[in-house]
Amino acid sequence: MILLEGIAASPGIAIGKSLLKKEEKIEIDKKKISDDQVEQEIEKLHDALAESKKSLKELKEETAEKLGEEKAEIFAAHLMILDDPEVIPAFENKIKDNKLNAAAAVKEVIDEFAAMFAAMDDEYLRERGSDIKDVGMRVIKNLLGIEDISDKMEDDVIIVAEDLTPSDTAKLDTDKVLAFVTRDGSRTSHSAIMARSLGIPSVVGLGNELIEKAENEITIIVDGNQGKVFFDPDQSTLDEYKVKLEEYKAEQERLMAFKDKKAQTKDGHQVEVAGNMGNLKDVDPILANGGEGVGLFRSEFLYMDRSDLPTEEEQFEVYKKATQKMGDKPLVIRTLDVGGDKELPYLDFPDEMNPFLGYRAIRVCLERDDIFKPQLRALLRAGVYGNIKIMFPMISSLDELLKAKAKIEEVKAELKEEGIKYNEEIDVGMMIEVPSAVMIADKLAKEVDFFSIGTNDLIQYTVAVDRMNEQIAEMHTPYHPAVLRLIKKTIDAGHAEDIWVGMCGEAAGEELLLPFLLGAGLNEFSMSAVSILKIKEVLTKWTVAEAEKESEKVLELGTAAEVKEYLRKIAK
Amino acid sequence: MILLEGIAASPGIAIGKSLLKKEEKIEIDKKKISDDQVEQEIEKLHDALAESKKSLKELKEETAEKLGEEKAEIFAAHLMILDDPEVIPAFENKIKDNKLNAAAAVKEVIDEFAAMFAAMDDEYLRERGSDIKDVGMRVIKNLLGIEDISDKMEDDVIIVAEDLTPSDTAKLDTDKVLAFVTRDGSRTSHSAIMARSLGIPSVVGLGNELIEKAENEITIIVDGNQGKVFFDPDQSTLDEYKVKLEEYKAEQERLMAFKDKKAQTKDGHQVEVAGNMGNLKDVDPILANGGEGVGLFRSEFLYMDRSDLPTEEEQFEVYKKATQKMGDKPLVIRTLDVGGDKELPYLDFPDEMNPFLGYRAIRVCLERDDIFKPQLRALLRAGVYGNIKIMFPMISSLDELLKAKAKIEEVKAELKEEGIKYNEEIDVGMMIEVPSAVMIADKLAKEVDFFSIGTNDLIQYTVAVDRMNEQIAEMHTPYHPAVLRLIKKTIDAGHAEDIWVGMCGEAAGEELLLPFLLGAGLNEFSMSAVSILKIKEVLTKWTVAEAEKESEKVLELGTAAEVKEYLRKIAK
Repeated sequence: MILLEGIAASPGIAIGKSLLKKEEKIEIDKKKISDDQVEQEIEKLHDALAESKKSLKELKEETAEKLGEEKAEIFAAHLMILDDPEVIPAFENKIKDNKLNAAAAVKEVIDEFAAMFAAMDDEYLRERGSDIKDVGMRVIKNLLGIEDISDKMEDDVIIVAEDLTPSDTAKLDTDKVLAFVTRDGSRTSHSAIMARSLGIPSVVGLGNELIEKAENEITIIVDGNQGKVFFDPDQSTLDEYKVKLEEYKAEQERLMAFKDKKAQTKDGHQVEVAGNMGNLKDVDPILANGGEGVGLFRSEFLYMDRSDLPTEEEQFEVYKKATQKMGDKPLVIRTLDVGGDKELPYLDFPDEMNPFLGYRAIRVCLERDDIFKPQLRALLRAGVYGNIKIMFPMISSLDELLKAKAKIEEVKAELKEEGIKYNEEIDVGMMIEVPSAVMIADKLAKEVDFFSIGTNDLIQYTVAVDRMNEQIAEMHTPYHPAVLRLIKKTIDAGHAEDIWVGMCGEAAGEELLLPFLLGAGLNEFSMSAVSILKIKEVLTKWTVAEAEKESEKVLELGTAAEVKEYLRKIAK
Repeated sequence: MILLEGIAASPGIAIGKSLLKKEEKIEIDKKKISDDQVEQEIEKLHDALAESKKSLKELKEETAEKLGEEKAEIFAAHLMILDDPEVIPAFENKIKDNKLNAAAAVKEVIDEFAAMFAAMDDEYLRERGSDIKDVGMRVIKNLLGIEDISDKMEDDVIIVAEDLTPSDTAKLDTDKVLAFVTRDGSRTSHSAIMARSLGIPSVVGLGNELIEKAENEITIIVDGNQGKVFFDPDQSTLDEYKVKLEEYKAEQERLMAFKDKKAQTKDGHQVEVAGNMGNLKDVDPILANGGEGVGLFRSEFLYMDRSDLPTEEEQFEVYKKATQKMGDKPLVIRTLDVGGDKELPYLDFPDEMNPFLGYRAIRVCLERDDIFKPQLRALLRAGVYGNIKIMFPMISSLDELLKAKAKIEEVKAELKEEGIKYNEEIDVGMMIEVPSAVMIADKLAKEVDFFSIGTNDLIQYTVAVDRMNEQIAEMHTPYHPAVLRLIKKTIDAGHAEDIWVGMCGEAAGEELLLPFLLGAGLNEFSMSAVSILKIKEVLTKWTVAEAEKESEKVLELGTAAEVKEYLRKIAK
């Protein structure tokens, strides 16, 4: 038995057979061909291209159906590469000029492209390089008659991989996948988010050992709650985890009882438990898990994986559909939050030494009407169809907030002038994620309808710790007393002006923190869909008075370790 | 007349003739030589090398005398390049193998080296690349019989340059330089720090226009107070500035009256006005300007421009000399603050996406006894000879502070065991520069003898603005109400535990802020030497009660603009 420990990326327990998804080492014979073989190799190439296109089209349709149009985009991009006027002749010429067999010719071309793109500074172009490689390998596999991994997938596998790209996960038949575990990644990497959105357990960041130790078809236990992975477990571990798996399933079922109940404390105090989302299809798991609203729609996802800004109409359609799906439940949509770790290649921002302390989010929008106004127009228009609330990210001063609000008024006047329907009374709020915003929350609260605390960034700036930096990762914790005091200060400032205060960072879904947050007066808890039911349950175990008492005690503790220990002690 | 506006890097007024220090375009004829000319060209090369070494040695000695040993290091480094076993043969071989004249051969070699180093990720190596270029150009000039700029320097010039490297400034005869103005740079760039340390006016970051518009030998006015530079001023501007210059000189003289006076308010309340320093020689201007102590000795300067860590003995000597120079005046020495924008190449830290939010300062020291303990030993030992206080940078939690203090106790026990003299009663304090430290200042204050607020970093983290990022530079301001509230909170927490609270960031030397800081209760103001006298004077214009009243009003304002306007209005 081998035990590996990594980052618990998506909760749950899985027991199953491994399916190793390694970068396949494909042996390609490089053969010199004679002049009269050239035609034949080019014909082979075109057959393989046709075959590749066919499978890409199928994948595109399957994915669109299973995971939504957006996820299918990657295959559309791959298809475009095969229609690119530069690519096919490059393959053909390599066969003709270098007298190479088709497979070797394709390999040389994609290696050349890959080297060229890899040397580029631009992340977008580097990714295009890996797309070309991806497509090229598909053509080579077709040339060599090698089956694709998804064809030989059996039921109930646990995927073991170096990393899972969007293209990899899109190809997976997720009905057949019990869990996935990866060498790379963090809680916020693509595969982790994907796992949580699919509701399957996942452990990531397991390091090189994972790939060294992994074999195909061995029994694996994935403990997505504790970030543990067991290869070839001994009988007692297996027995233990079989029990845990049953318990986990039973608990999931038991928790479903809370789905249609209002989120309230033992003594009947109501709060809102909501979900965070990035794409339209994330609405379903939020509703399926009893979410009472959406506390954070990360609108930047509409701007990603594209080559230009989404139009007002495109955005309007998405916001409208989302709010219609949510019915009268609140849907808080955060305006574009790019920069930092989220680059939009087509906006071509300057490189920054410290992007997290740089030109991002509202700082960009306030200078770019061409970006900000179409989004505000789309939001105001979609607001007619449901309970949309607009939220500004990264507000660090009163000036910024006033400027952003003025922009809304400007857009309203334009829509009115144009005779276009919009929601005149739309609620406007802001993220509290920069320490300066907390320190002037009394001033800001007079200007908005709500606050939502973004703990990830707030911790990052408060403690001066990049949340992606592994060397100091353990310093990034919501249990730091300074962070808890800032949260309390924010809530108090909001309540003094009679506005509600929510939280849409990871911390909102942490069971341990719940008594503190409840006692501090938090009104809305917004989290990953998978956490909603559990938080609804824990809420019912506390009265407000009990939570308030504990909250006060917690605020007097000196270190994160003491806080965590105390919260563990009082957890119900 | 042309007016350019840039960053006011060092205060004062200068009027004089321009001396353009552009990257010189030297025309090098590339000639094919015959076999029998090879010997001759190699001989020329060696003559030029000898000449270059001679002038480098002279420069090294002159600089050591004028500006101190440390500044002279650069020429020692250049001399080492000329003794490098790889460099000379590279020149010779280029002559032999490519049959090139010496000047062209040297040029090709340095271009090759420069390209190689420029492509390197490591800043240290990139700088070595520019050193090689610098040395190579010196050799070429000697080969071509071109005079060096410093030879033709006249009296009372104003240097106009793209940028000034340490090597450039070291070469300047500063007695003859009235001011310098540069295209590049920020308030914290080398040329700016240098100007302040020399006490001459400087405006930096003037942009490309500076180089386009500049000519040699034209009249220039440099207004280092307002960041303005006038080329070829009209008569009325010239007259106006002649008056200003006289006023400035008169004021400098007038301010000297405060040199030996205690820093105190109109009503006799005493505070400490101290200086910030990086190198031993910075002590003199601090004392010459009436500094009552050193509020910040940036010990990291001892670690820079070297190839390994300074030993305990080396550090001990510097700390001892510094404290002996200061007599019984306090000398606050900050333990090593590297990482962020301050790299030590020989420590080989990993590249970080956001170095300002990364592995730096106390975070490094707490994990590296080999770095931390020799420094603590040197500080404790030097503490016997004066009034040294130890200060920890970047403390963000109580745990870190307790660990750092424990390290001091550990080192004390070792010194005792070894029978080495040290200061058992040395004061230990910490920087307040991370927002989390302010939020738990009540806890931290119980554990230290003093706080010192580092405004540069505190602003950076509080407002989430990289202070080096030009695109959002105007957001980095001490006038942000959130920053002022954090300052007040820190002072109150310190006083509640009866410890003194100082400030060693740029803001401590800003006249406008003085009434706020005084009224908030700040005990120590530590700044660039050039600001000390002025701050001592402004202090005498305020009573504590007046300042307290204004401080309270300022804390209720909503925006940085309002704060600044209000402070301007009440300034005396």
